[in-house]
Amino acid sequence: MVDIATRVYNHKWKIDPIVRSLIDTDFYKLLMCQSVFRNRPDTQVTFSLINRTTRIPLARLIDEGELREQLDHIRTLRLRRGESTWMRGNTFYGKRQMFSPAFMEWFENLQLPPYHLERVGDQYELTFEGAWPEVMLWEIPALAVLMELRGRAVLSTMGKFELQILYARAMTKLWEKIERLKPIDGLRVADFGTRRRHSFLWQDWCVQAMQEGLGDAFPGTSNCLIAKNRDLEAIGTNAHELPMVYAALAESDEALAAAPYDVLSDWHEEHSGNLRVILPDTYGTEGFLQNAPDWLTEWTGIRIDSGDPAKGAEIAINWWKSRGEDPREKLVIFSDGLDVAKIEELHAQFAGRVRVSFGWGTLLTNDFRGLVADDALAPFSLVCKAVSANGRATVKLSDNPEKAMGPESEIERYKRVFGVGEQERLEVVV
Amino acid sequence: MVDIATRVYNHKWKIDPIVRSLIDTDFYKLLMCQSVFRNRPDTQVTFSLINRTTRIPLARLIDEGELREQLDHIRTLRLRRGESTWMRGNTFYGKRQMFSPAFMEWFENLQLPPYHLERVGDQYELTFEGAWPEVMLWEIPALAVLMELRGRAVLSTMGKFELQILYARAMTKLWEKIERLKPIDGLRVADFGTRRRHSFLWQDWCVQAMQEGLGDAFPGTSNCLIAKNRDLEAIGTNAHELPMVYAALAESDEALAAAPYDVLSDWHEEHSGNLRVILPDTYGTEGFLQNAPDWLTEWTGIRIDSGDPAKGAEIAINWWKSRGEDPREKLVIFSDGLDVAKIEELHAQFAGRVRVSFGWGTLLTNDFRGLVADDALAPFSLVCKAVSANGRATVKLSDNPEKAMGPESEIERYKRVFGVGEQERLEVVV
Repeated sequence: MVDIATRVYNHKWKIDPIVRSLIDTDFYKLLMCQSVFRNRPDTQVTFSLINRTTRIPLARLIDEGELREQLDHIRTLRLRRGESTWMRGNTFYGKRQMFSPAFMEWFENLQLPPYHLERVGDQYELTFEGAWPEVMLWEIPALAVLMELRGRAVLSTMGKFELQILYARAMTKLWEKIERLKPIDGLRVADFGTRRRHSFLWQDWCVQAMQEGLGDAFPGTSNCLIAKNRDLEAIGTNAHELPMVYAALAESDEALAAAPYDVLSDWHEEHSGNLRVILPDTYGTEGFLQNAPDWLTEWTGIRIDSGDPAKGAEIAINWWKSRGEDPREKLVIFSDGLDVAKIEELHAQFAGRVRVSFGWGTLLTNDFRGLVADDALAPFSLVCKAVSANGRATVKLSDNPEKAMGPESEIERYKRVFGVGEQERLEVVV
Repeated sequence: MVDIATRVYNHKWKIDPIVRSLIDTDFYKLLMCQSVFRNRPDTQVTFSLINRTTRIPLARLIDEGELREQLDHIRTLRLRRGESTWMRGNTFYGKRQMFSPAFMEWFENLQLPPYHLERVGDQYELTFEGAWPEVMLWEIPALAVLMELRGRAVLSTMGKFELQILYARAMTKLWEKIERLKPIDGLRVADFGTRRRHSFLWQDWCVQAMQEGLGDAFPGTSNCLIAKNRDLEAIGTNAHELPMVYAALAESDEALAAAPYDVLSDWHEEHSGNLRVILPDTYGTEGFLQNAPDWLTEWTGIRIDSGDPAKGAEIAINWWKSRGEDPREKLVIFSDGLDVAKIEELHAQFAGRVRVSFGWGTLLTNDFRGLVADDALAPFSLVCKAVSANGRATVKLSDNPEKAMGPESEIERYKRVFGVGEQERLEVVV
């Protein structure tokens, strides 16, 4: 039987929205948003889209009108009652009422601020300006919209069967990855793939496949909407934007050197247990750990998000040892450019030496490499970053100079302040 | 939206029928049925299921109760008005009113005769007895039921995602075959895969994929129901059962030697053009052609259904030449155990020398080889054949002794009468 009601309902769509909920975003965005809302609510920031894969001419692939429609649609979204209930009532990482009443009240009344969009050559300049807690929530939906619109442009040229085979191949590809992961004893792999996913529906499928295929080895997803709909754990802690903005606000070199620890000091007060995970690479992992205050050694783990991950993990292990901690009780979360082979390799190398966990991103939710002609659906390296705070440029160094960003002179200053020397340059795939 | 009506309707199913229409069968069955109805309506025949792949323990895999339910369901089927209209009103091979009013009236009132089912060890004995025009219509649905029940038994052990991936892989596998066939200039490949299909829905998908992928290179399907539903040509001519039964009825060696030509003499009166296709291998192709009457040389083509197909085609070409015919105007239809590599090879070898066409069967509609553990869904060689006529055993020799059937003494007599010597033994895959 034809479901006439659904067909007629579909006729009414003006657009097919890509982002349909304010919580179709990474869990750590909401955690960080609350922290910013509490500690730095008035900071004025600018976030900007950065296409690190410049050979992808986004403005030629994506129609500006469609892009505006999708972004405008996101500005019409408000937190729904059920979403608010889920955030207020849920137990996250074993903690009730993680989100305070004050934050929830603010969030329930939030509309995302305006965007600025301009075509410059074959790329788009897309920026968001305003109060940090509002602007920061644009990052994930903006990226998801651009990735999915680019995909839709390619898919619109394909026939019905070509589409069916495309998804058949993509499903098979992911399932074969999951089958490789299944036998790994003690594995934990979460979905971190919201921002550069192929599409919402595809991410939702990937999450279900992980759930069915890996069972308990799949602890959950970073995507709050999918976590809510599928009754899964929402996963995540914090990201580079906190130290980047705190650092930009520092009034002196001394304050700059202290900024990354100030971030975690605020975090330390707000969170415990598995939420106390250090992201040490913003201005170089080695220096960060050497100069870290003692209270940081008690934290649960370290997330490794740039540079050679095995090297990063060894540095973390040695640091814990040097501070008298037992690494076997500590958590290492790998989250940079992972795919199955790398997960297998890192798990084999570190399981037993530390508690190992993986945040699998783009190559979980968007591995359409090799599936269409000219690899037109391959994921690419698109980010949306805080580029300034209260009028000052932000800087990120990371453990891979390919991921560094900020004005050249400021990069030099940061390198000096944080004692970052020569770094290994690694290709950024996604 | 949930389509509640469909869900509730599905709740009511006592069984999920495999064969839902009397025209869910091969077109040539209906052509032959009309010929038998006109020429030999009173012949009493027995058809019997023969599992040539004895390592597949059908009676252990398929529940007898479920098998009976499916067969009983087929006996409840009657020709529907729309099916009758399609048969009466359609143009088949350019001819209107191919099915006579008398035949249609008979068919509209037909119920398939009873079946006899008994478990013997790990196999089923399944036989059908009665008037030839009625009994012969059991062959295709009986095979389709057994193949699909065996598949369902395997599928019932699989999870939702495993099933999705299974079909994703099967779709990808077929699409890759179609993509290999696409560039072949002048190709013609029809679907001959009803009897040993994985399932009805899967055959229907395969047909649509062929239609979308090959366009005009896909002339149609042997399945009447799918041809009707998808507005395609129904394809087919005649099969071994005609000479096998005519031969069994022969009263002397002379009459036996003439029987295969008697079949085609009856056919010659009833059909013209592309329906005049010789199936020469029942009692050996070489002898059949050597002794063929002159009027057979005018026929449109030859179907090659056993033995080495390239050798068979060369024999056909030489025969046409020896009789003064131009092979380039003649049709060769290959239909035995085809898969893509063989189609490519035969097309390359014979295109231009004759008009080449392919009837692609089991490895089009049931190539689930290698997709599940223990290859439990791989197709196998199941047939349902006329084993006796008016109390006398039938015999088939074919061009491959692996496909021969009948009592040993009768096989020897047939070999003598038809002058069949040493034959090459070829493995029967499907």
